[in-house]
Formats: sequence, C-alpha cells, structure tokens
Amino acid sequence: MDLNADLGEGFGRWQLGDDDALLDVITSANVACGFHAGDPSTMYRICGDAVERGVAIGAQVGYRDLAGFGRRRIDYDPDELRDDILYQIGALEAFCRVAGGQVAYVKPHGALYNTAAVDEVQAGAVVEAIRAYGPGLPVLCQPGSTLARLAEAVGIAVVGEGFADRGYQADGTLMPRRLPGAVLHDPDAVVARAVRMAVDGEVETGDGQVVPVPVASICVHGDTPGAVDLATRVRNGLTKAGLDVRSPHPFPAGSAGGEPGRRG
Amino acid sequence: MDLNADLGEGFGRWQLGDDDALLDVITSANVACGFHAGDPSTMYRICGDAVERGVAIGAQVGYRDLAGFGRRRIDYDPDELRDDILYQIGALEAFCRVAGGQVAYVKPHGALYNTAAVDEVQAGAVVEAIRAYGPGLPVLCQPGSTLARLAEAVGIAVVGEGFADRGYQADGTLMPRRLPGAVLHDPDAVVARAVRMAVDGEVETGDGQVVPVPVASICVHGDTPGAVDLATRVRNGLTKAGLDVRSPHPFPAGSAGGEPGRRG
Amino acid sequence: MDLNADLGEGFGRWQLGDDDALLDVITSANVACGFHAGDPSTMYRICGDAVERGVAIGAQVGYRDLAGFGRRRIDYDPDELRDDILYQIGALEAFCRVAGGQVAYVKPHGALYNTAAVDEVQAGAVVEAIRAYGPGLPVLCQPGSTLARLAEAVGIAVVGEGFADRGYQADGTLMPRRLPGAVLHDPDAVVARAVRMAVDGEVETGDGQVVPVPVASICVHGDTPGAVDLATRVRNGLTKAGLDVRSPHPFPAGSAGGEPGRRG
Amino acid sequence: MDLNADLGEGFGRWQLGDDDALLDVITSANVACGFHAGDPSTMYRICGDAVERGVAIGAQVGYRDLAGFGRRRIDYDPDELRDDILYQIGALEAFCRVAGGQVAYVKPHGALYNTAAVDEVQAGAVVEAIRAYGPGLPVLCQPGSTLARLAEAVGIAVVGEGFADRGYQADGTLMPRRLPGAVLHDPDAVVARAVRMAVDGEVETGDGQVVPVPVASICVHGDTPGAVDLATRVRNGLTKAGLDVRSPHPFPAGSAGGEPGRRG
Repeated sequence: MDLNADLGEGFGRWQLGDDDALLDVITSANVACGFHAGDPSTMYRICGDAVERGVAIGAQVGYRDLAGFGRRRIDYDPDELRDDILYQIGALEAFCRVAGGQVAYVKPHGALYNTAAVDEVQAGAVVEAIRAYGPGLPVLCQPGSTLARLAEAVGIAVVGEGFADRGYQADGTLMPRRLPGAVLHDPDAVVARAVRMAVDGEVETGDGQVVPVPVASICVHGDTPGAVDLATRVRNGLTKAGLDVRSPHPFPAGSAGGEPGRRG
Repeated sequence: MDLNADLGEGFGRWQLGDDDALLDVITSANVACGFHAGDPSTMYRICGDAVERGVAIGAQVGYRDLAGFGRRRIDYDPDELRDDILYQIGALEAFCRVAGGQVAYVKPHGALYNTAAVDEVQAGAVVEAIRAYGPGLPVLCQPGSTLARLAEAVGIAVVGEGFADRGYQADGTLMPRRLPGAVLHDPDAVVARAVRMAVDGEVETGDGQVVPVPVASICVHGDTPGAVDLATRVRNGLTKAGLDVRSPHPFPAGSAGGEPGRRG
Repeated sequence: MDLNADLGEGFGRWQLGDDDALLDVITSANVACGFHAGDPSTMYRICGDAVERGVAIGAQVGYRDLAGFGRRRIDYDPDELRDDILYQIGALEAFCRVAGGQVAYVKPHGALYNTAAVDEVQAGAVVEAIRAYGPGLPVLCQPGSTLARLAEAVGIAVVGEGFADRGYQADGTLMPRRLPGAVLHDPDAVVARAVRMAVDGEVETGDGQVVPVPVASICVHGDTPGAVDLATRVRNGLTKAGLDVRSPHPFPAGSAGGEPGRRG
Repeated sequence: MDLNADLGEGFGRWQLGDDDALLDVITSANVACGFHAGDPSTMYRICGDAVERGVAIGAQVGYRDLAGFGRRRIDYDPDELRDDILYQIGALEAFCRVAGGQVAYVKPHGALYNTAAVDEVQAGAVVEAIRAYGPGLPVLCQPGSTLARLAEAVGIAVVGEGFADRGYQADGTLMPRRLPGAVLHDPDAVVARAVRMAVDGEVETGDGQVVPVPVASICVHGDTPGAVDLATRVRNGLTKAGLDVRSPHPFPAGSAGGEPGRRG
C-alpha cells in the first residue's frame, strides 16, 4: 500500500506544510510543478530529498493559476491543457534527473483533479498528455472516475487513490466539503478508515452503507496542524494491519542504478 | 556553419516574428521556454515543426520576467537562477520528447545572455544548470565571454556565436545598441559580414580594426520587418561561399532513431 | 451614439491592434487593466492620449489570466472576482488621474463579459465591485443581459452595447462564433447594421427576424486587418445618418476643469 | 511618533505574518499592492480593518517579482518603474476608497527600497510616480537617502524611518544582514533603541559611535516569531517615554468626513 501527499506547495517566500517531516512518512510525493504552486528551487530540493529517502516522485500538475492555487475550475481548450501538463511534467523531470530519479507518476491537483474526475474533455487532455509523454507513466486518481476510465482505455496504469480523512457518498465520490461529515477529524477514525480501505477495499458512507473503493494508495494531507502526526498514525496503522507500506512504482534511481544527470 | 534564431517568443494571444518561415531557413531554433516569453502550446508546435524539418532545438532560457521580456537584469541568487534554468530546460525537453527529439543545446536570452557574458556569478549559475542536467549539452554563446570560459573549464562544449547584423568593438564585444553603427541595416553588408565571420573567423570594427571571432553559429533575428528575407540571404551567402550550413548538433531524432515519446 | 473599442491589449514586448489610429475614430476606449492584457506603461500612454483627444476611458476588466487572454471561463469565488475588478479599476484610475481624467465606465472583457451576461453570481460580483467603488460609474454591456438587469436593480447606469459585425439570434444574444454568419465581413453590411441599430434600435437575425436592441454604444474591433478602416466607415455611416457620435459620459477632464493629478 | 509595519504580504493561498494582531499595535500599515506580494482580496480586507481602527494606509510598492518577493534588484527602465508604482498606488486607492479612506503615503519595498536609497535613477522614478499622482502624498523612507533627498527637492514630504531591530553604520545606513550585529534579537535592546531614536533622534553603532537619525516613524516587523509581541513592547516603550504614538498622516476617512466610496 502506497501513502501519498502533496509536497512543495509553497511559492518563493511562502511556505506551506512541513515537507521535510512528511518525506519521512510517505512513500510517494506529489510535487507541485509551478503552475498552481511550487517553484524551481523548491522542486530541486524536494526531488533531492525524495530520491535520497527512496520516496517516489509524482508530477502534481495543476491549472495555471497561482492566485487561485489551482482550485478554481478553468475552461481550458483541451490542447492547451495537455500542453500545460506536459510542460509541468517536463520541468519536474529535470529536477528528478538531477537527483538521479525519474517522474514516477502524474496526479492532477485541485480543480483539475475534480474536473477530470467527471469531465471527458479535461480527463481526455490529462490522458493525452500522459500518453504523449511516453509509455510507463501511471496516473494517480480516484478509482471509477472519468479520468481512471479514459486512462485505462488507452493502456495507462491507474493507481487508485483513497482519502482516509474524507466522507464518502454512496456512489464512491467524496462528500462536498461544505456538508457536515465531509472531513473527519478524529485520528482513530481516520486510521481505521485507511486500514479498512487498504485491507478490505471498502469504505462506510455517512448513512452507513458500505461502498467498494479499490485503492492502491492512501492520500494524507500536509498543510493542516497535526498533519504529520496524523500521517504517521495512518502509516503505523497500515503497518500494524500487516500491509507493506511502499510505493507501487519501481524506484527510479534504483532501477537506473546509475549516475545522476545522465542524458539519454 | 550553423544558423540560429530565436523562436516561439510569443505568449498566449500574442505573436512575435514568423516562426514558420524561419524554420525553413535556420538550422538551430532557440525556443523560448516560458519565463521571458513562450508558452506550452507554442513550444509543442515548434518542437514538432523543428523535428520534422531537421532543425536542432535549443533551450532559450531567460529570467522569470514576462513583463520585461527578460531584458532587464535581475540580481538572482545563483542557486535560484540555476533552478529556473533547469526548470526551463526540462519543460522544453518534454515537448522535444513528444516530437521525437531532444534538447540539443542551451542559449541564454536577453539580459541573462548579456550578464552571463561578463558576470561570474550568473555565468556560473548557467554552467551549473547545464552541468547538473547531464553530459552532452553544449552552450551557445559569444566566444571569449565569461560564460564560454566557465563552461569550457568544466568540459561543457561551447558553440561560439556571431551576429551578422551587429557592430563589434575592438575587444570582440558588441557595440551597445544606443551607439551609431550598433545595428547594420544594409543586407549586403550583413551577408558579407556573416561570410567573413564564417570563412575567416574575423570581423571588422567600426573604426576599421579586424578582430578575430571564432564562430560556429551565426545568429539571425526574426522579429523585425524583412527578417526572414535577410536570414535567407545570409544562408544563401554562406552556401555560395562554400560552407555547409547545418547544425553542429547530432540530430536527436536521428540519433535516437526511435519512437516519439519513449521513456528512458 | 457612442463608438467603443478595446485598447491597450498588448503586454510588455507584445502589441495588439493599432491603438493610436483607433483613438482618432472612437469616442470611448475600453482600456485593458493588466489582468488579461495591458501593462502599466501602456495604460499610462493610452490614458494620456485619450484625455488629449477627448475620448472617454473605460476600465476593461478581465479575469486574472494573461496566458488565456481572459477568454477562458474561471469559476471565481464572487468576493475574489469583486476584488480583482476593484483592483483593476483603481489601477486604471491612477493613470486617468495623472492624465487629468477619470475612469468613466466599466466594461467586462472576454469570458467575464460572456459569463456575466448569463450568470447571476459573476454578474453580481461585477455589480458589487462597481457599486462599492462609488456612485456614478456606469457599466457597458449587452442590453437585456443578466449583468444589465442586476446593475439596473441597484441603480447603476447601463450603457447598452451593440456589435455591428456580429450575427444576432432571435433572443437578442450573439451567434456563437463557430456558426456560419456569426461574424460579418462585408464592410457595407457592417455599416448598415450599425446605422440600423443606432437609428432604429433593431437588428435583423440570420433567419430574417427583426429584434429590438436598444443600444447607446456600438463596439468596433481593433485587432484584425482593416479594423481601423472599418471603424472609420462605421463612424462616417453613423454621422451621415444624422447621429451625433460622441461619448455618453461627461468628459472627466472637462468637467473637472482642473489640474492633472490633483488629489481629492 | 509613528509605528509602521508591512502588512498584507501573503498571496492567494499563502499567508505571511499576523496582520490582524499587528493592526492593533501599529499606526501606519504598509500594504503590499500585488507586485511583490499581496492580492486584491487581502487588500480589501486590510483596508477595511485599517480604516476601522484608525490606522493610516500606505502603498507598499515593489518590483513586479512575486517569485522573488521583490527582493532581487531589477534594472528597470525608469518610466516603466514609475508606471508600475502608479499602478500599485491606484489599485490600493480603490480599496481605501471602498473602506472610506485614502492612500496616505508610499513606502518602497525590499530591493526597490534599498536601490532607491542609493540610486538616482530608481529614486527618481519613485519620486516621479508620487509627484504625478498628485500633491499631498508623502514618502516613507530612510532619512538622508537618495530617495529622501530627491523627494524633498520637488516638495514631497518625507517621513523619516528608523529600524529598532537593526544595526546601524557610522554613515547612518543599515548594517548588511550578513554581518554579526545586523539584527538585534534582545527585546529590551530593541525597545531602548526605538526610544532613543524617537526621543533623541540618534542611534549607537556597533562600535559605539552615536549617529543622528531624525526619524518620525519606527518600523517593526510582522513576519517573524514573536513579532507582534516585540512590536507591542516597542509601542509601550515609546508611550512610557512620553511620546504620542500616532500616525503623522491626517486620517483620510476623518478628513473626508464622508461616505465610503464617494466618487470625486
């Protein structure tokens, strides 16, 4: 079972979350690529730290919207969205390469994540970017989403993602944040939910139904007080339940066995 | 002899120069990477067109300054400059890869070009970025500049560049644009200067001195009226003088011999 | 009858349209304020030129989206949209003030224009920005649109706008650009349409219906070949039809009768 | 004696400092205007809060450099710098006006502050922006700086500023941050220095010399741990020393005596 979190979501003078502490807990780092958050020097540092600790690096791609942190839906032309995503993957790849690693997967961020989960046009643009970039790059997203379906249709591997601290609805989607019960705050409940998702592939909705969620990765958050502590408890819970907490991605540096920065 | 020009220097709605026509004349395209100019969809299109026509693709890296078109000197921290450059190279590499090519060289733009020609700190940051990115990536810059010297010192290949339409000073540097004679407008004089640089490796200054300029690439401009015509005349002049006008870079698509978008 | 056009839509190195020539033809200049296009030095220059020629200055406010030229719908939080609009109006006001003028009206741009024409949330945010800025600032928009309705409801004056070179539908809205007949290219037809709108307050749709369009301002475009010539023909057509072509806005510099840059 | 601090220096999702707590301590708020930091919604909120508490609002104008937080010197063309400053002042004015206030002064930020203190070109651009904006707008800067001198020469009022927590050199300039003693951390020493500056107009340098610093405003910082507590101690120290801690600026809302948002 994989444990992923968003990292590198500061920009210039501004920091967000405790990237360093999270890197000791998670197995996959979704690194912001500069369009909704993230800057080159942060990417440089995090890629080095991640490779050093054996944490897989994913391209956390978002809309070009620093002011809105990528959380506002933008009606992109699909070709422009594909190109914005390719640009971000490529930029991150440079820092992975310098660190002796490789971009291991792609995860859309914020409003792009939510839109691509239901919208064929934007999901298609994400798929097209990943497909164009070349074989071997999986996408991290919700199982059953439009993005997951379109990705699988063209042979892109999907790493299904579950949220341990979010309320689910009967159709397997997340409860909107404005509803009561949308976010779980009790650490024990969060850990229990993560374990049940990971072991049994199911989650209980607010009204008591049990819904299948075939997840290979649990998402934890890093930008709230107590986030690192909660992530640690989730990891420990998964381990105690007998799960092997590690990235599903072949570790790039290891697989390459090679020198940092070698050009192909 | 190589013929290079700046391409892809529009942004979104705004265009600059006639990229399409220039691609039929030049052998190396310095593609703007989004920091001083350029956007992902333009990069996508130009990389495809360049690979198709056998034109080598260089990363035209600049300061993060869209409003100033990268023409205002910025006192970067050297690590941040290195990282901004790596980011741009990586972003361009994604589009080269999709097109079946590879970033063939790096050329700094505007105020970064001028600053790195004389400033050890910024030249060092450019060199550090190229070195970190991996072996085999040359830099296109003025012969004898600080950047050329620092690059050679760490084993980075330097492609010396000459300007056919600019006045030179006795020390081999360009005349500042505000001085009379800084820019040559007579096409015949421009062609003659290009040929003399290419064949004899020398240029005549405003006051009649002959200065050595060991160039492997002639830079032509694309954003002025008549630019494409002038570039064509320069190319024809070089050919008539018996020079083989082609890129010094092994053509990436050819060397890979392979499929677009293959991951390493 | 007013004649308006979008001006100042370049950014830094990039120009768009012939602002200078248009200022001799139009009576109201919609000046881009830096979010979708426009930069401070362009705003400075255009405000000076507009005041000098007696052309009214309007704040052409747009989404914060330089890369998309404000043409992609963004799902703004309404408070953030209100604040982005206030920011742009204020910025333009500084340049009007320096020139001895005043912001005379507000016109939303691109996707904001289209969205506010039908969407209560975004129209409400535009209205709230104008209302908060203070009494006396009209909005330039399509008569009958949601924006027009919400503005009138709180006492904001609406200057109804017609498009001489666009096809109309039976409900008074514009034909989508992808449909045949959406854009008129025949200059005589464009002039005739402008005159009929201005004199009779009506327009003929593609299928021959006559629809009322109570307009006080005709919009002409500046960023296409022949644009200035077409705008001139429209102006001459209106004048020949006996209309007084002038801005409906009290000219600020004249009304103040005063010194540039005087603080309130 | 005035007490000023930088406020509103977050951007979108990112916060910096405790603006709300600082507003209860200071008498003048230097509000970031969106070029190096700050966003419209933050400006809206802070202007409202400042007017409500009787805190004067200053335009904290900076270079257009979000990624560098305005801390990297940029070699602006002076006209472009003037225009960037006018734009920022105008944008802030809109929010002051909505809140029933007025921009009370201008303070350059970061590298612009430091550059304008010694560089005639950039100081001249700041002065030209303030002069163009209209009479009655003072500048907050170091006494004796190039900016102070050029401002006074054209009749712009200068509010001399002292730094309670910074080491001074014999010529009245600040010690560079890299030197030991450049930043004072002992709260008692900081308070004592503030009082001595305010009461006696002098400061002791690292090597024991006493230097005159004719200050009318003490700058405190808000973005470090304990910043608000330290600012409060400085304020209390000044009060105990018999100083009247208040803004030197006529309070705009009071002087206008009027309605928020009234247009001139």
